[in-house]
Amino acid sequence: MQYNIDNLIFSALREDMPSEDISTNSIIKKYALGKADLICKQDGFIAGIDVFKRVFEILDKKIDFNIFYKDGDEVKNKVLVAEIIGDIKAILSAERTALNYLQRMSGIASYTRKAFNLLKDTNIKLLDTRKTTPNNRIFEKYAVKAGGGHNHRFCLSDGVMLKDNHIAAAGGIKKAVQMARNYAPITNKIEVEVENLDMLKEALDAKADIIMLDNMDIETIKKAVEITDKRALLECSGNVTIEKIESLKDTGIDYISSGALTHSAGILDLSLKNLRRL
Amino acid sequence: MQYNIDNLIFSALREDMPSEDISTNSIIKKYALGKADLICKQDGFIAGIDVFKRVFEILDKKIDFNIFYKDGDEVKNKVLVAEIIGDIKAILSAERTALNYLQRMSGIASYTRKAFNLLKDTNIKLLDTRKTTPNNRIFEKYAVKAGGGHNHRFCLSDGVMLKDNHIAAAGGIKKAVQMARNYAPITNKIEVEVENLDMLKEALDAKADIIMLDNMDIETIKKAVEITDKRALLECSGNVTIEKIESLKDTGIDYISSGALTHSAGILDLSLKNLRRL
Amino acid sequence: MQYNIDNLIFSALREDMPSEDISTNSIIKKYALGKADLICKQDGFIAGIDVFKRVFEILDKKIDFNIFYKDGDEVKNKVLVAEIIGDIKAILSAERTALNYLQRMSGIASYTRKAFNLLKDTNIKLLDTRKTTPNNRIFEKYAVKAGGGHNHRFCLSDGVMLKDNHIAAAGGIKKAVQMARNYAPITNKIEVEVENLDMLKEALDAKADIIMLDNMDIETIKKAVEITDKRALLECSGNVTIEKIESLKDTGIDYISSGALTHSAGILDLSLKNLRRL
Amino acid sequence: MQYNIDNLIFSALREDMPSEDISTNSIIKKYALGKADLICKQDGFIAGIDVFKRVFEILDKKIDFNIFYKDGDEVKNKVLVAEIIGDIKAILSAERTALNYLQRMSGIASYTRKAFNLLKDTNIKLLDTRKTTPNNRIFEKYAVKAGGGHNHRFCLSDGVMLKDNHIAAAGGIKKAVQMARNYAPITNKIEVEVENLDMLKEALDAKADIIMLDNMDIETIKKAVEITDKRALLECSGNVTIEKIESLKDTGIDYISSGALTHSAGILDLSLKNLRRL
Amino acid sequence: MQYNIDNLIFSALREDMPSEDISTNSIIKKYALGKADLICKQDGFIAGIDVFKRVFEILDKKIDFNIFYKDGDEVKNKVLVAEIIGDIKAILSAERTALNYLQRMSGIASYTRKAFNLLKDTNIKLLDTRKTTPNNRIFEKYAVKAGGGHNHRFCLSDGVMLKDNHIAAAGGIKKAVQMARNYAPITNKIEVEVENLDMLKEALDAKADIIMLDNMDIETIKKAVEITDKRALLECSGNVTIEKIESLKDTGIDYISSGALTHSAGILDLSLKNLRRL
Amino acid sequence: MQYNIDNLIFSALREDMPSEDISTNSIIKKYALGKADLICKQDGFIAGIDVFKRVFEILDKKIDFNIFYKDGDEVKNKVLVAEIIGDIKAILSAERTALNYLQRMSGIASYTRKAFNLLKDTNIKLLDTRKTTPNNRIFEKYAVKAGGGHNHRFCLSDGVMLKDNHIAAAGGIKKAVQMARNYAPITNKIEVEVENLDMLKEALDAKADIIMLDNMDIETIKKAVEITDKRALLECSGNVTIEKIESLKDTGIDYISSGALTHSAGILDLSLKNLRRL
Repeated sequence: MQYNIDNLIFSALREDMPSEDISTNSIIKKYALGKADLICKQDGFIAGIDVFKRVFEILDKKIDFNIFYKDGDEVKNKVLVAEIIGDIKAILSAERTALNYLQRMSGIASYTRKAFNLLKDTNIKLLDTRKTTPNNRIFEKYAVKAGGGHNHRFCLSDGVMLKDNHIAAAGGIKKAVQMARNYAPITNKIEVEVENLDMLKEALDAKADIIMLDNMDIETIKKAVEITDKRALLECSGNVTIEKIESLKDTGIDYISSGALTHSAGILDLSLKNLRRL
Repeated sequence: MQYNIDNLIFSALREDMPSEDISTNSIIKKYALGKADLICKQDGFIAGIDVFKRVFEILDKKIDFNIFYKDGDEVKNKVLVAEIIGDIKAILSAERTALNYLQRMSGIASYTRKAFNLLKDTNIKLLDTRKTTPNNRIFEKYAVKAGGGHNHRFCLSDGVMLKDNHIAAAGGIKKAVQMARNYAPITNKIEVEVENLDMLKEALDAKADIIMLDNMDIETIKKAVEITDKRALLECSGNVTIEKIESLKDTGIDYISSGALTHSAGILDLSLKNLRRL
Repeated sequence: MQYNIDNLIFSALREDMPSEDISTNSIIKKYALGKADLICKQDGFIAGIDVFKRVFEILDKKIDFNIFYKDGDEVKNKVLVAEIIGDIKAILSAERTALNYLQRMSGIASYTRKAFNLLKDTNIKLLDTRKTTPNNRIFEKYAVKAGGGHNHRFCLSDGVMLKDNHIAAAGGIKKAVQMARNYAPITNKIEVEVENLDMLKEALDAKADIIMLDNMDIETIKKAVEITDKRALLECSGNVTIEKIESLKDTGIDYISSGALTHSAGILDLSLKNLRRL
Repeated sequence: MQYNIDNLIFSALREDMPSEDISTNSIIKKYALGKADLICKQDGFIAGIDVFKRVFEILDKKIDFNIFYKDGDEVKNKVLVAEIIGDIKAILSAERTALNYLQRMSGIASYTRKAFNLLKDTNIKLLDTRKTTPNNRIFEKYAVKAGGGHNHRFCLSDGVMLKDNHIAAAGGIKKAVQMARNYAPITNKIEVEVENLDMLKEALDAKADIIMLDNMDIETIKKAVEITDKRALLECSGNVTIEKIESLKDTGIDYISSGALTHSAGILDLSLKNLRRL
Repeated sequence: MQYNIDNLIFSALREDMPSEDISTNSIIKKYALGKADLICKQDGFIAGIDVFKRVFEILDKKIDFNIFYKDGDEVKNKVLVAEIIGDIKAILSAERTALNYLQRMSGIASYTRKAFNLLKDTNIKLLDTRKTTPNNRIFEKYAVKAGGGHNHRFCLSDGVMLKDNHIAAAGGIKKAVQMARNYAPITNKIEVEVENLDMLKEALDAKADIIMLDNMDIETIKKAVEITDKRALLECSGNVTIEKIESLKDTGIDYISSGALTHSAGILDLSLKNLRRL
Repeated sequence: MQYNIDNLIFSALREDMPSEDISTNSIIKKYALGKADLICKQDGFIAGIDVFKRVFEILDKKIDFNIFYKDGDEVKNKVLVAEIIGDIKAILSAERTALNYLQRMSGIASYTRKAFNLLKDTNIKLLDTRKTTPNNRIFEKYAVKAGGGHNHRFCLSDGVMLKDNHIAAAGGIKKAVQMARNYAPITNKIEVEVENLDMLKEALDAKADIIMLDNMDIETIKKAVEITDKRALLECSGNVTIEKIESLKDTGIDYISSGALTHSAGILDLSLKNLRRL
């Protein structure tokens, strides 16, 4: 996906260096080959290796890497994740931006993996949401997949989700679904958000493809599964905690979506060490 | 700062709508005036109101707001933070991007305020770092200030920080400081990162303006303050937890910097509710 | 969709005026209010009025319009489609770019309407393809809808279409569909392109949501409909001519897709006339 | 012209892949060398080979090509135009965008060649206009040249064309030409559009370099040529059909311009076939 | 030309404020209406008022101006050129960028006017060149016109100039002119650079529209005018000093071009004074 | 700094070639290896070699250079500065843009070196200002350093300078300095501009880091130095001429800043010669 993320990475580098790295350029006047170690400082799961590499490559086209883990792999505190061999100036100037990407992406992968593991003996897919950091969605949704999750719609242009306001404006779920089927690209499934079982029945009548059960309790969810009887895919959403995931495991729903995967994951601590001249 | 953040906000809107909002456009075919409430769903501190507003304005130039809190204000669960009056289509299409900014910025302000309160009876300034989310630094550093923190350098171009690799390449702290003074814009202070008291003394001899004490224990920090005797500003850094802040309160240092302010703050939960036609 | 198309329109204006309109600027030295008529010079259907307006607005923020037809409306040769009232310089400089958009979009709407009319007593939806002019897809797909057509996927990111190469690489249709379901956002339908009835059966077993019958003859298509028996949506594709559409009308398929809607529609001739000072 | 078209091609690729090619990425997980054939499916003339290549190169820097025809060459139905050897993922993801460019450019070259052939025993040059597809002018004007045509002005900034509104605003043709000579870069010829022979005489008096005879009948055109007597270059314009070109052949005019070359050419059908692993 | 220069002005503002104006934002926390005077500190000619205004408008949409001089007007030391009424923050933050444009453009207009005055009783036009500051050509060429000069070609795309290398590659002037006539848009004049009278004769035979006499002495120039006998336009070029202009006045040439107009004009000193609250 | 200046250089190339180099493309149809000499036509100091090279590289990735001088080196009239070996088309098309950068940067370096030499036996640093050409600051400030000067703040975001309006708005120098220390990143020095000795004393009391003596006479400056007694760094500013620099040499101030370094340096004449085929 390089052609597509380069814009964002260039913009990130410019954010950190609108003119130049004055510390490094004060002192290091010319190309010098060096090597540095990427060390993990926490247990977790890695994601974003290609993004990390790309940041350095933009500053040093000839930079080289020895990579010992791939996206999705488990990493332990203190392991050597990668070696970077290239221009010391480039390594110093790109370090922070490269780590800012890698730490966040790995943080999301690690957090997702934890939630995913609770569901791994079920058929339930764990989904992300659009609650991502602006201008970082492509990285964050990728990291969710690296952690075992699946992607809900990428954006407003590629998935239909009909909420209360859409339904009210259309004059009912049935009308809303029809209008969406008529307007949206035919390759899109139509998802409807429902708040109770009556709405669920309406949505089923309207032949919605996916129905999101918004903030329902476990009992209601179970009834919803029964009523639905495989006529639509069911998604549970709303303040998804570890406990909630546990309690949802055996309900027979298809998807659990969680904004926290991307907005509350925190980082995985990684660090560049031992930069030395070669 | 509008002219400067518009680029980023446009890019964020394009990320969420590369072509259009197919759900809303399916159903709402023309301009309809509506009103929605911005509700807080958690206690905390708010930051990013202008960014939140700007996202909506880009989609509806005539949108209007009643704002009841300003950046830095404390907000309680369930309070009405603002009312939005404008085109329902614009409100629906901009909602997620606007909230993604506001929630993250308010999360950072809330987290920073908590740490700041521990220091409020001291002269110690709480600082952020460059560990920000790519392409979001301007928003995140602003949020740190809204939470009572101060900004360390914005980027590699506007502050000098000499680390071990710079020092080694220069051949000692003194040489490194001289080279930086000679190269960097004269308006920049020169900061040196030191790992022990010998390096501290060298940095003082070199007349560094700020000295960062990297990961030192409390005893060493106290000695460092004594040795320094106001000849330079002292910054403590490295895994700054609540406990650590407590223990640093009476050491006489000038700054505590914490990457967690921006990389681990999580969000403040805010939500758009009650969208109704007017 | 203004925020999203402005980029493209600015770029189009810069293409036509990298520095300035030297003819107009030679002669007209200051603002003068004028009025011009947009006249149709051919029978057809109009599309792109908002794009047309936007081009002028970029050069004259206060420009005004009287619009007598809306997108999708039938227009006859010689009718007055709209009046433009504003800065004469802006009208002269924007004229060509505005018409280039409007003529192409209206040409597509007109062509689509013709094909659509053949199908209007059926349940078959007429679909566009990705065979659009680079950097004009958003306009062209919009025009297809204005002409009564529907949109197939907008782009490679928002719809899955598994072709022979994907199927071969996966090791069969079933495997390919599974891999796609596992990887793609859950809101996407999975479409498979098949060349014969055996592949169709495989695709049905794999529970593909949509199956594209590539270049099949009418008899085979009828058998395909029978075999499918509503278990999937069926799309016919490949050199769709007026005759072919006629013959497909009663087959019971769901979709006919035609690249010609966007790549061979030609323009609808429209012209700016009678520019006069007010 | 690569540095200059890359912007447009990147933008076209982003139009087709705002995030990624979900079909291909579902199934093909890593680099695999493959080969595909570019086949012509219609008789015509080829144009845009370098653009076609460039689209693939952006997704795979090491991609390789065997090219058997060059821009302007005649191609017959079923011939092998080129072979593409590179990353199968890149070939699949770039295919549509590359073909969209190549088909349109070749369509224009083919259509232009047909019109050009009618004039090839004359000194009359066949010209394009500014009636091009927005953000595609550089490609379309290039294709016109590949088909034997010549370019009229590229844009409003690089050629002076004085129309009725300019003339009225200036207060006559003479005044308008003077003002344009005084304002425009000295390297520009001044062209005046005239509707009758009186205006022609005025334009000649004003020493216009080129005079466009707008929508005149053959008899009037012949008189215009006589009156002009080589004192200016003469261009015929307005609904230029094959018949009209025939009738203009022996009039002695210098140029025939035709918007249809770019706005009504249609595509030349070309297709990528036989993608196979190597 | 606003739509076209905004890109450049935004980029200039971002160059001066990648994040914010920390001095002003430290102290002035909210909107306050103020007024400032634009004072001339040197005699000269003004150019760039609209650019100057536009810089402020980008930071304060409601800013207002009283403008007492227009582009091309003579200004004397100490005169009040304009008053600016608007947000004090915007005035302070935009001041330097606005002045950087205005001073340079006025410097060029002033310098050009001086050279122009030497020629004002002749028919010789004073021309600029492409020796402009990168990313400032549109402003600088405009300023030349404001100072009484004329524009040579704007860029490589809108004017043909055949130099020794082109001539050698073509195999002579005649061949080169033919190739250019065949390739370039028909609205372009063909200019040939010649170094001696033999080349001049060749260029005349080739029917070049403009011939540039490169670095010739006065005697040779006079002969060139005689030989040419109005068959082409003649341009003198090469180290054009005041003395040289004097000596060229009566030679009968058509154009004198001077790179110094844009590369050596220096600035006209202008300053913002007396900013006061209203 | 390549990643960061490429944007600007691309934009400059597009300014000079919005579509193509019609002269060169008329005549030279394919790649031909050539060599050209970069010759100095004036004594001075060179700066901008990497920028010069980069312009050519963008048009010909394989272009090669023999460089005989490096940035900051003295060059004499007629010396061979560099040889360029590459595609003749690229050399011809990039020549002007490359020289426009190199000549301006070398002009600034040459002018700076002259002023610098007056100060070379002192400890006074010669500083630039923000009076740079829009969108050229990074190049011009670099050239100042190549000429022996130092950089004042790069932009409004990375240095604090409190002027009369800031001081008045804050309610005095002390208050202004405090507000700036509280708001600005901690790595910034606080500079205050003072107009007389009373203000100087206030600024010293406020512990300003740098104090700019605005347009003071020599006697007052000497008193200022005495009063300051090393408690702050002192900068002299305002119409800095050669004579003024001479008179400031022995005053004991720290910095002299001069806008003329960047706004009035003129160019160093350099030229590409002897382009020949290899």
